[in-house]
Amino acid sequence: MIHVSRNGHTHFGEFGECRNLLEYINTVTPFNLPAPCGGKGRCGKCRVIVTDGDAPPVSGEERRLLSAKDLDRGVRLACMILPRGDLTVVLEEEKTGVGNKSFLITDAMEHQPSLRKETLILPEPHLHDQASDHSRILREIGLDSSALPLPVLRELAEAVRGNGFLVTLCRSGGEILAVETGDTRDKLYGIAVDIGTTTVAAYLTDIASGKNIDVVSGLNAQEAFGADVISRINYTMTHPSGLRLLSERILDQIDMMILTLATRNEIEPSHIYTVVLTGNTTMLHLALGLPPENIASSPFISVTTESHTIPARELGLSIAPGGQVNVLPSISGYVGADIVAAVLAGGIAESDPLCLLIDIGTNGEIVLGNRERLIACSPAAGPAFEGAHVKSGVGGIAGAVNMVTESGNSLSFTTIAEAPPLGICGSGIVDLLALLLRSGIVDETGRMLSRDEAARLPGPPSAGILDRLIESDGEPAFLLVPEAESSVGSPIMLSQKDVREIQLAKAAIAAGIDTLVLRLGVRMEDITTLYLAGGFGSYIHKASAVGIGLLPGELHDRIRVIGNAAGKGALMTLLSHRRQGQCESIRRMTEYIELSSSPEFQEAYIDRMMFPQ
Amino acid sequence: MIHVSRNGHTHFGEFGECRNLLEYINTVTPFNLPAPCGGKGRCGKCRVIVTDGDAPPVSGEERRLLSAKDLDRGVRLACMILPRGDLTVVLEEEKTGVGNKSFLITDAMEHQPSLRKETLILPEPHLHDQASDHSRILREIGLDSSALPLPVLRELAEAVRGNGFLVTLCRSGGEILAVETGDTRDKLYGIAVDIGTTTVAAYLTDIASGKNIDVVSGLNAQEAFGADVISRINYTMTHPSGLRLLSERILDQIDMMILTLATRNEIEPSHIYTVVLTGNTTMLHLALGLPPENIASSPFISVTTESHTIPARELGLSIAPGGQVNVLPSISGYVGADIVAAVLAGGIAESDPLCLLIDIGTNGEIVLGNRERLIACSPAAGPAFEGAHVKSGVGGIAGAVNMVTESGNSLSFTTIAEAPPLGICGSGIVDLLALLLRSGIVDETGRMLSRDEAARLPGPPSAGILDRLIESDGEPAFLLVPEAESSVGSPIMLSQKDVREIQLAKAAIAAGIDTLVLRLGVRMEDITTLYLAGGFGSYIHKASAVGIGLLPGELHDRIRVIGNAAGKGALMTLLSHRRQGQCESIRRMTEYIELSSSPEFQEAYIDRMMFPQ
Repeated sequence: MIHVSRNGHTHFGEFGECRNLLEYINTVTPFNLPAPCGGKGRCGKCRVIVTDGDAPPVSGEERRLLSAKDLDRGVRLACMILPRGDLTVVLEEEKTGVGNKSFLITDAMEHQPSLRKETLILPEPHLHDQASDHSRILREIGLDSSALPLPVLRELAEAVRGNGFLVTLCRSGGEILAVETGDTRDKLYGIAVDIGTTTVAAYLTDIASGKNIDVVSGLNAQEAFGADVISRINYTMTHPSGLRLLSERILDQIDMMILTLATRNEIEPSHIYTVVLTGNTTMLHLALGLPPENIASSPFISVTTESHTIPARELGLSIAPGGQVNVLPSISGYVGADIVAAVLAGGIAESDPLCLLIDIGTNGEIVLGNRERLIACSPAAGPAFEGAHVKSGVGGIAGAVNMVTESGNSLSFTTIAEAPPLGICGSGIVDLLALLLRSGIVDETGRMLSRDEAARLPGPPSAGILDRLIESDGEPAFLLVPEAESSVGSPIMLSQKDVREIQLAKAAIAAGIDTLVLRLGVRMEDITTLYLAGGFGSYIHKASAVGIGLLPGELHDRIRVIGNAAGKGALMTLLSHRRQGQCESIRRMTEYIELSSSPEFQEAYIDRMMFPQ
Repeated sequence: MIHVSRNGHTHFGEFGECRNLLEYINTVTPFNLPAPCGGKGRCGKCRVIVTDGDAPPVSGEERRLLSAKDLDRGVRLACMILPRGDLTVVLEEEKTGVGNKSFLITDAMEHQPSLRKETLILPEPHLHDQASDHSRILREIGLDSSALPLPVLRELAEAVRGNGFLVTLCRSGGEILAVETGDTRDKLYGIAVDIGTTTVAAYLTDIASGKNIDVVSGLNAQEAFGADVISRINYTMTHPSGLRLLSERILDQIDMMILTLATRNEIEPSHIYTVVLTGNTTMLHLALGLPPENIASSPFISVTTESHTIPARELGLSIAPGGQVNVLPSISGYVGADIVAAVLAGGIAESDPLCLLIDIGTNGEIVLGNRERLIACSPAAGPAFEGAHVKSGVGGIAGAVNMVTESGNSLSFTTIAEAPPLGICGSGIVDLLALLLRSGIVDETGRMLSRDEAARLPGPPSAGILDRLIESDGEPAFLLVPEAESSVGSPIMLSQKDVREIQLAKAAIAAGIDTLVLRLGVRMEDITTLYLAGGFGSYIHKASAVGIGLLPGELHDRIRVIGNAAGKGALMTLLSHRRQGQCESIRRMTEYIELSSSPEFQEAYIDRMMFPQ
């Protein structure tokens, strides 16, 4: 088990197949470490402090790049560490307050960007060669015609004359996005933005080198207008300028992130030529100012699910004047471009073996298939996994119980940031429920036994556990943290009603998976890999998720956590025009299964209401 | 001779080969008459009052469409009149004060517009058919992908649901410019704008029917910033926000004209989908906000001469939210899109016989060629033909002497609007100089004889003419209007110096023609038609123009006045996508000859300095 903490926030996980600790931290944990050298032990930026566990000896690179004082403090370079067993590391505090998010290594990504630069030495105009500045450029690159964006035309005369007719062209496919004075080939940046309902993350990438440089993330600035998709949609429907307001909010936030990334990496915003937008369908509607109201009610119709290329100036983004915004395509109103990007990131549309992708949130999004066929659905799980509608439930905040384990006869738990407990978040809830199911305290129908009933179980729980079975509001409940130990002055518990909430939520996800398996005419065990995407998927403990029947037991050993796959997929499209095209193929080939009208789903939902025995 | 006057402004011309008086008025004169029925005697709108001359008898159509009172007043329908000899007609006062300009009959124009509308009945969304509004439309028209302009996307959900999923699409080529509720196929308008340095004219056309509906024109709103191209360019170079200011001025003016046309014809501006812009290269630069400064000095380089399609919203024009502005291509800094459009209107690029097109202004623009090859030049004639740099010269204003004739022994003249004379405008200057050359008072070198010298000529001028030879400021001058008869309190005359100005101007134009003829390796007499385009070309009297050597004598009988050919060409592109494409071909195939570095031109210029004998 690897423990990683920063600013008091701790993440636990299994190392799995990562190449080194740097890759682990940047792909599995929610933290990020800078890696300008791409994890080659050259830049000395991916510093961690090893506080416990089994780390390999200090390498020559580390001796060269770290001071003696740092080495004494236990500072190491994450890219040099391949853990040999359990390991606990602390990350130094982040310099900026913009938030943190997976810093994605783009090293392994296909690098054939549609965005490219080339220098031209134009023949100087002369009375015998009076071609216009525009025609002169086209002639030089052998094009008959190619429009220039109006802002580029407006600066063209100055640009071509600024350095004796030496210019750099930035082109994307057949389009010219910029004409710059002199040789600026080394300044070619793009930004990928994943607009989540809760969190927005923006990744800055050096397209010339193919390296990811930096990331910022923060809470979606629309949060004040509703926590979830439906309440945001309602806001646009009930307030006359609601849509415009929400649109401005998110665009302003994205623009701010762009400027933050540019400033702190000392690059000119005008050297950023493309912004890729991904996110769920509603978030993209809001960003583009498209009314999302028909997504909210049956038959759940989006305005558009196509990909779009929009001049950045039309959205008011402060990048190159001729820069573009590429909006990735969505599949349906509830399977958005974030899922398309995750399918891309998982390589599912190119895979021969059958893959399953699950992103669990208020709506779970599930995609099943391979290069031959893809089908998707979006079961409504409700917010139980996010800690809502659960008595002691909280989000992933400091003090939330995020892991519950049983060792011997006693039960132990950890909290986020090791703060005094104040509630229990999704991963803790799933752990606790799995434990209660294992011990028989909750039976397969979801009924929680009373202390007396539990004591009569064959192989009954230990007295320490039995003592925690109480009654609350006239129904059985399991007391995790007594009032006295809780930091909020009330006990932290899981009640019968909470179990029912989780039961409904996990049944929806599991039935969604079943429906897709049935529709595709395959067996569960035919699935080679189950990709867990998104935030919750990164924190959940696989055994517990399987234990409560949220994820199929057949796939226990085939679960792969892919963290912020949407962001990764968006970055991939920046770095490869083939990948960009693949998004459109994914959109077209993916068949959306509407569960609300699916008899298979209704049946599976009832079946999956039971917990595994 | 046909005399046409309106609001006191009179035009004289020869009827030529026009089909009827309506076509003559709308193509040869600067006036326009409405012709919603296309000149078929059905609508009764093309009213004229015949005041003198030989008109055919009143037709049955006229009896039906005009009241007895009107017929008594001499009111006739211009479309029903084929003049049998001289004819004088008065047009009724225009209702609006926006100005007037040739109203072009579009009947004979090729009608295959790229802009078209079609209705779709979309299948209603359903839980089993959840395609987005955008995808639903594409699916229905069998397109895999097609972007919608952002403003169209923003209104799409409402548009498709407004009338039970019956929508009308407006498409231009592969692009969708509008999606409208219900069946709006009969509302499909376009506007062609000719941005002249002095005058701006905007034509409203019903693209569905192919008919021209209305026109407005007015002085270019940039006039306060300089009368000619060079002074406008200077303004942009000497004032920090000069370019933006000039750009805003002309765009605001065009927008105002669009709204005027829409309002007075009771159409919605949102049913106008395309605005075609033509004009000289500098005017188009100013409209698009492109710095024109390199056009002003050698080697005279434009920012762009290509054609452009720009979202109307980017230029702030109040047409359909997804509408487009098509900027016609130019040939060089001094041969603009107005000439490209004129070449199109003249059918020169499709012609087997050799054609010559001349537009005389401060810079004359000349194009020679046929479908095989086109060459162009732009001799700097100076403003003499526009009445500037000439002692008594004025523009085409009321009271300007616009025609001078000799009958018997006496000389007579007319003035614009029959107002008391206050100066002499271009056509009058040319007439007068031609007359002086004919009588020998000005010799072939351009020297004006003194009265004594003239009296000694073999076959000397009459005493009435000789008396007009005076001395002014120490040089010979010809007195046209004595001080007492002039409305400005000073005599109207043509001085030796004025003759020199005209001599330089006509030499430049004539030498430009010679240079093209030489470069193309043809003889003057090989030219089948000489098209005279533009304002001055409409007013000038052919015999006089040939008389002073401005136009080649070999082509005297082959001169065809085509009036506002730029506006006509622009309209043709609105009505035919093939014509639109032809503009780009004309741009590409036309070779521009820079006269300032042409030895042939220098030589011809000296040769043509002499007047014809």
